[in-house]
Amino acid sequence: MTSFKNLLPIILLASTGLTHADEGQWQPYQLPQLKAELKRIGITTSPGKLGDLSRSPLGAIVALPGCSASFVSPDGLVVTNHHCGYGAVQRNSSAAHNYIADGFLAKTRAEELPAGPNERIYVTDKIEDVTLELTQDLKRSLSPRARHDEIQNRIKALVAQCEKDPSYRCSVPSFHRGLEYYLIRQMMIRDVRLVYAPAEGIGNFGGDIDNYEWPRQTGDFSFLRAYVGKDGKPADPSPDNVPYRSKKFLVVSAEGLKTGDPVLLAGYPGRTSRYKLPVEIRAARDVAYPLQVAALQADIDTIAKSTAANPEWTVRYASVEKSLQNRMKKTRGLLDAFARKDIVAIKVKQDAEFRTWLKAQPGATQIMLSELDRTIAADIALSNEEYAWSLATNSELLKSAHTVYRLALEKQKPDAQREPGYQQRDQPFIKARLTRLEQSLVGTVDQARWQTALQHYRALPAAMHPAGLDALLPANNGLDALYRHSQLANTAQRLGWIDADAATIARSDDALLQLAVKLNAIATALEERRKDLDGKLELVTPRYMQAIIAFKKSQGKPVYPDANSTLRITYGTVAPYAVRDGILKSPFTTVEGILEKDTGKKPFNSPPKLLAAIKAKRYGQFSDPVLGTVPVNFLSSADTTGGNSGSAVMNKDGELVGLNFDSTYESIAKDWYFDSAITRAIHVDIRYMLWVMSEVDHADNLLKEMTIKYK
Amino acid sequence: MTSFKNLLPIILLASTGLTHADEGQWQPYQLPQLKAELKRIGITTSPGKLGDLSRSPLGAIVALPGCSASFVSPDGLVVTNHHCGYGAVQRNSSAAHNYIADGFLAKTRAEELPAGPNERIYVTDKIEDVTLELTQDLKRSLSPRARHDEIQNRIKALVAQCEKDPSYRCSVPSFHRGLEYYLIRQMMIRDVRLVYAPAEGIGNFGGDIDNYEWPRQTGDFSFLRAYVGKDGKPADPSPDNVPYRSKKFLVVSAEGLKTGDPVLLAGYPGRTSRYKLPVEIRAARDVAYPLQVAALQADIDTIAKSTAANPEWTVRYASVEKSLQNRMKKTRGLLDAFARKDIVAIKVKQDAEFRTWLKAQPGATQIMLSELDRTIAADIALSNEEYAWSLATNSELLKSAHTVYRLALEKQKPDAQREPGYQQRDQPFIKARLTRLEQSLVGTVDQARWQTALQHYRALPAAMHPAGLDALLPANNGLDALYRHSQLANTAQRLGWIDADAATIARSDDALLQLAVKLNAIATALEERRKDLDGKLELVTPRYMQAIIAFKKSQGKPVYPDANSTLRITYGTVAPYAVRDGILKSPFTTVEGILEKDTGKKPFNSPPKLLAAIKAKRYGQFSDPVLGTVPVNFLSSADTTGGNSGSAVMNKDGELVGLNFDSTYESIAKDWYFDSAITRAIHVDIRYMLWVMSEVDHADNLLKEMTIKYK
Repeated sequence: MTSFKNLLPIILLASTGLTHADEGQWQPYQLPQLKAELKRIGITTSPGKLGDLSRSPLGAIVALPGCSASFVSPDGLVVTNHHCGYGAVQRNSSAAHNYIADGFLAKTRAEELPAGPNERIYVTDKIEDVTLELTQDLKRSLSPRARHDEIQNRIKALVAQCEKDPSYRCSVPSFHRGLEYYLIRQMMIRDVRLVYAPAEGIGNFGGDIDNYEWPRQTGDFSFLRAYVGKDGKPADPSPDNVPYRSKKFLVVSAEGLKTGDPVLLAGYPGRTSRYKLPVEIRAARDVAYPLQVAALQADIDTIAKSTAANPEWTVRYASVEKSLQNRMKKTRGLLDAFARKDIVAIKVKQDAEFRTWLKAQPGATQIMLSELDRTIAADIALSNEEYAWSLATNSELLKSAHTVYRLALEKQKPDAQREPGYQQRDQPFIKARLTRLEQSLVGTVDQARWQTALQHYRALPAAMHPAGLDALLPANNGLDALYRHSQLANTAQRLGWIDADAATIARSDDALLQLAVKLNAIATALEERRKDLDGKLELVTPRYMQAIIAFKKSQGKPVYPDANSTLRITYGTVAPYAVRDGILKSPFTTVEGILEKDTGKKPFNSPPKLLAAIKAKRYGQFSDPVLGTVPVNFLSSADTTGGNSGSAVMNKDGELVGLNFDSTYESIAKDWYFDSAITRAIHVDIRYMLWVMSEVDHADNLLKEMTIKYK
Repeated sequence: MTSFKNLLPIILLASTGLTHADEGQWQPYQLPQLKAELKRIGITTSPGKLGDLSRSPLGAIVALPGCSASFVSPDGLVVTNHHCGYGAVQRNSSAAHNYIADGFLAKTRAEELPAGPNERIYVTDKIEDVTLELTQDLKRSLSPRARHDEIQNRIKALVAQCEKDPSYRCSVPSFHRGLEYYLIRQMMIRDVRLVYAPAEGIGNFGGDIDNYEWPRQTGDFSFLRAYVGKDGKPADPSPDNVPYRSKKFLVVSAEGLKTGDPVLLAGYPGRTSRYKLPVEIRAARDVAYPLQVAALQADIDTIAKSTAANPEWTVRYASVEKSLQNRMKKTRGLLDAFARKDIVAIKVKQDAEFRTWLKAQPGATQIMLSELDRTIAADIALSNEEYAWSLATNSELLKSAHTVYRLALEKQKPDAQREPGYQQRDQPFIKARLTRLEQSLVGTVDQARWQTALQHYRALPAAMHPAGLDALLPANNGLDALYRHSQLANTAQRLGWIDADAATIARSDDALLQLAVKLNAIATALEERRKDLDGKLELVTPRYMQAIIAFKKSQGKPVYPDANSTLRITYGTVAPYAVRDGILKSPFTTVEGILEKDTGKKPFNSPPKLLAAIKAKRYGQFSDPVLGTVPVNFLSSADTTGGNSGSAVMNKDGELVGLNFDSTYESIAKDWYFDSAITRAIHVDIRYMLWVMSEVDHADNLLKEMTIKYK
């Protein structure tokens, strides 16, 4: 039981104006527009400096595949979440060295372990507006589709040009639904090593049970290191490589934060849908999500049933199941949020206000709006068919077959004309994916999952079925034969087809390859329709977003683009939230909360040395003066989403004070609608991380390597 | 979902020093000692005025049987909890007029309904220290038992003297475990009428499910009126009676309170055990409570099983079951609290500090301490036997038999020498009890409950069995015959024995009467041992408490006596509490919380007119400026216990701002140990009461009758 002292930080909120929204995942260049807001919440560092990629802190923020991270020493030391470094821990674990259960600490650089051939660290070093280059001199007479193709070709050319230096990986994502395009250049470090991860009972304390939950007491952190060739450039993993000299790195503040303090958060948020029209939200709420929840649950149940007989199979599907459960909780959370608050009604009201404003503007806005509505309606319909297709082909082996056949077809074209994802530059990733599949595949389980998905496909409304697909799909009792007459479950066989040409594949007697060849026409038709529609969307949605930006500007508000896996900065305040009448969630948890939850059994199995340190109140210098103990996790109102895992949480001076790793269940709907009253991101408190490193795991070498400002 | 605004009141706590304890159920005369404390929390009214029984507010505080209440008009209008006025509502309800479900409102005095012959309103008008009269001139040579008897005789004489005026009911409870005695004189008003009770869906919203729970949204209030004869003196119920002229009554403040505001609370707390020795707590925790929980659960299960076949029987045992469930939750709550926090260890430490201090004082303290420990050990052992006796005789019919036989025996003595509880003055209450039994009795259920209790009795350690009892108890298969050969289940038969003499009863062929006659020797032996032991306790516990008071005084702390159903005042602050790591319970609930919980089904079945008013946000003038809506219940740190139900909750000026009605589950252990960090009492907010009266039930006549200060 916590004492009265825990209430005091809440009290300190008095000094902040928390009724303001902290919504916004801002592009670095936008920060100067936010000067007044940043000042209001207490950020003292100049917005210009904060948004400068060539300086710390922003220059220290890096990406991992699907995660965010940051440099915390000049020698390439990277801190991220435990769940982001988990693959590296898992890869190095064995019965003899159970680093998952026991944790891992390299006491010297020589002891650092290869994180695996697929691990990457991406260091963004250039963000360049290329909108003009992509859209200038486009003939007005071009059809939407021709315009789309031309833009894609220009993008491919830009990427190819940028990647001439093999150190870089480049991309040209669109912002504001096609209004702007930026060329993002990232140095891609390929030699990544595992430095330190606490025991799973710390790093994943609470596991799936506590996923999206608060209160939370998870030490979700780990350390990697970037290695490069002796020339300082990215190189394939090699013992000769040397630590990357990261001139930009974050200073760590051991002082931590208190309730009401401002936070800055930088990372790579994946995808949001904040500017969707009411009709899009309604379609998700009433059609897409309920269908997805049903199919996901059926898939989860099928995996459970078909792996039940064999514990080894259960292990093999553990990460698949975890990922499905996570999507399930997220989708359920969205539906719960839609049920709790009428977000559609709010959006309808906002949309009506916008349209009223727009109609008062000069120009042919009516035409734009009706075109927008028509195109969005077509997009919803096509998305439903695409979902139906994904259900109908929900077999990992069939998908592999499709990949190799499609790759063979694309290889018939010059590299620059190939479909993105099937170019030369993509081939290593395809190979890695087809190899990695063996870790989570059992033929009979894959077949059972497909069977279930097909049942859900067949139950969909007829309008959702892509034309011609039904006739090509196997009968209910046809899957056995398909799997019996396919060798694709064998990794060597699967990989063997990567270099085959299309004709050879078409002649093969592998039943799943044969089916993939037959289905390719349907897949291609869907892709062509998608490109046609994207062409139309690219004509209308940029104009819509331009109008939205003008509308918001008329209200004095800047506009951030939806998340698209590019570097963003958000800010907020350490803050509680009201979960229901009479109950508040307070913004800090403490090590004593670990004692409350620990059961000795997974996922609530803290290492004994951790429990001993807590019970002995061996807080060291990491005790919070208000809480009177070591804080573990904290809440802030910063705006995050998937991909923000591992993002640096910084104080007003840009010093590292925590790592983002989750958000609360009540926040899940934020991808669609940011409700500032209840949206909270969950962070690891830097003091817990430092305390575990100091008092529990004795990671003195790392504590020494980082620049830590103590009180 | 509540908005950010709800967090603001919590924030206001900043201005108060909540880390101080608000422990203490103070006797009125003690208030001036608390001047500094009262000033600290913001009470502006002078402590002298607050403690003056002849003035408002204290003079307006009255008692009901087992509850507290207060006058709120000069015409005898009394406000108390819904559950305290429930008997009156129930009594007047019928299929045609379901006042329980629909509520009841007398629009004129003529419409007010008789509350029932057992309803009483007690107006305390004199509290007189009679310690000296009881203890002076007691010969030192008296044995402890002779001394005890003499004190009891002096008490009886004082009570008899006081009750010569038939308007009064008098008592002489001991304070500080026998250190002091006060004569309490209460005017006993016997004509009580039901004025207003909201629908059960308001007054008992949440029912047993929400008992001891927070958040809570219960409108636990009702109104009664005191009637007296035309001469202004208490009289038997009669249409000729007139409203009592209550010169002292509470002014109502419609302004309510906000988080951090001070509260005063006055009422009649029943019983606490704050000065028990560690050994007594250990005995309760390790022996008495676990046994009680097991026996209570078995009793509850037996009632459920033996009434299952007959819905009418279920109804008849509803209130018995409710009361058992309440005791169960309370006892479980105590055990949970003992498990959560090592209260014994805290008490051991406090006791050790006290003993160290005591040993440094002049005087023969060692002898006192060893005598205390020996006597307390004997008390624990005897209490265990008394509990065993209560299990062995847990038959309502057997208890009735015992009562009438015992009454007959006592009637052989002059009234002044009879045992308290069996004097002339007690006879109407005995008769009422034996009559009321018919409302909650079914012979076969009573027999089944006794059978279960006997099994638990037999499983108790042998040392707990009173000497000679086992041989007299019926065999397992003997109960059938006992019930078959008894007429006591018949109310007329039962009452018929009240006037019988002992010899007649002894000769009766009623099997249960025969058993009661046989068991009387065991009962008497236990009572005699209790008196002997009380005599010893009365010698040693007052000296112990005197030393405790001196010890606390040396620390600058005044000492309040344990609760004993006499008028007490406590104070506190409107305050949240931390329920576990990361979760705060905030101190106000709102009408929107009713919408969150309402299911349309009992006990979450709000009247449609209430729901409509909430949905329409028809808050009238009762909206809280911070919450932006009507508050329903609130928490304070005031020190309460059973008996405090219906207690007036007052603001710093002594104006009524709420009614106490419950405390949180985490607070249950407060009867033994007051943990200021988590102990919270639950109150109805006066604004909810006034809002329901104004917007929902239109009790305009009562709103007009009361003196209400609006903002």
